[in-house]
Amino acid sequence: MRSIDELIRGLSRLPGVGNKSASRIAYHLIQRDVRDNHLLGELISTIQDKIRLCDVCGSFTEGQICDVCQDPHRDHTLICVVEQPQDVFTIEASGVYNGYYHVLHGAISPLDGIGPDQLTIGQLIERITTGDFSEVILAMNPTEEGDTTAMYITHLLRSSRVTTSRLASGLPVGGDLEYTDKVTLARSLRGRIRMSDQ
Amino acid sequence: MRSIDELIRGLSRLPGVGNKSASRIAYHLIQRDVRDNHLLGELISTIQDKIRLCDVCGSFTEGQICDVCQDPHRDHTLICVVEQPQDVFTIEASGVYNGYYHVLHGAISPLDGIGPDQLTIGQLIERITTGDFSEVILAMNPTEEGDTTAMYITHLLRSSRVTTSRLASGLPVGGDLEYTDKVTLARSLRGRIRMSDQ
Repeated sequence: MRSIDELIRGLSRLPGVGNKSASRIAYHLIQRDVRDNHLLGELISTIQDKIRLCDVCGSFTEGQICDVCQDPHRDHTLICVVEQPQDVFTIEASGVYNGYYHVLHGAISPLDGIGPDQLTIGQLIERITTGDFSEVILAMNPTEEGDTTAMYITHLLRSSRVTTSRLASGLPVGGDLEYTDKVTLARSLRGRIRMSDQ
Repeated sequence: MRSIDELIRGLSRLPGVGNKSASRIAYHLIQRDVRDNHLLGELISTIQDKIRLCDVCGSFTEGQICDVCQDPHRDHTLICVVEQPQDVFTIEASGVYNGYYHVLHGAISPLDGIGPDQLTIGQLIERITTGDFSEVILAMNPTEEGDTTAMYITHLLRSSRVTTSRLASGLPVGGDLEYTDKVTLARSLRGRIRMSDQ
């Protein structure tokens, strides 16, 4: 049926939704309270009208400047650089960080044609040179692109007074040596922490 | 952020979509081409206007009578009884069945307050007594509710000229004895097939 097929096709383009899940969702949509469909359809159609990027850090916000950037009680000496806006929410949800953020909107990836100019690295350097930050935490993903971007930014900041740091990479807590890939294992060995120092 | 939270909540009510997948989908929606969101939102909002239940079998259709019921070239002696409209699509996709269908829209479940009168069992009996069917394939799920419903319908048809059958239950093809639950294993033992007969 054309209308069901169209709906399944549209749903299966969402991340993590395969063809089978899309069918299951479509049949559910056909049979549930129609008001729930009107509400969800409206939320999806209009989400981009309600959300924009923060003028300061580039994270998602409903206003002009996001809640974090507007909060004067956070640690003014720390800025955490992430690839995507959703990374801000992930770190906020962990509750272990109290500084500010900067969203690059990607990572340097020559193969994908993404160089430093396509990212917000210029704005980051501007914020660091005019702000009070003393440490830049480079929280890009532990991938080749993330590492390249971290090295590039560290290089740009080599003559400034700020220190740069990178999130530790290694075994996930609760993980199992047996199921850890070689690269992660190599990193966790290189980055090993002396017990006697703690 | 209220609008993102609302969207995540709406998405996480879809079957098979947990809170983490819903977040991932929401962030994707915020960042992709807005026209894709307008299209998907419209498809979800309007799907129930386009789809109705077939007057004959109770499956989904865009018209008054579904394609299967309208097809004169199918096997008029066979009717396959299923719980849900989507079961029709699953069986059709297998390509191994060429008869007609009847959708019960559920199964007898006293605990959930669903008795025979809440299902389309009356219409099924009517179709069988007035039609040319010689076999009724009871393709309800191999659950207690499905079994109860199958037994109930078989009982209703005991004095009619049609034979009733039930889908074979047992090990899934490609499955593994070691990982098969006890009930399935018991059924596959009870329903064992003599190799010498084949």
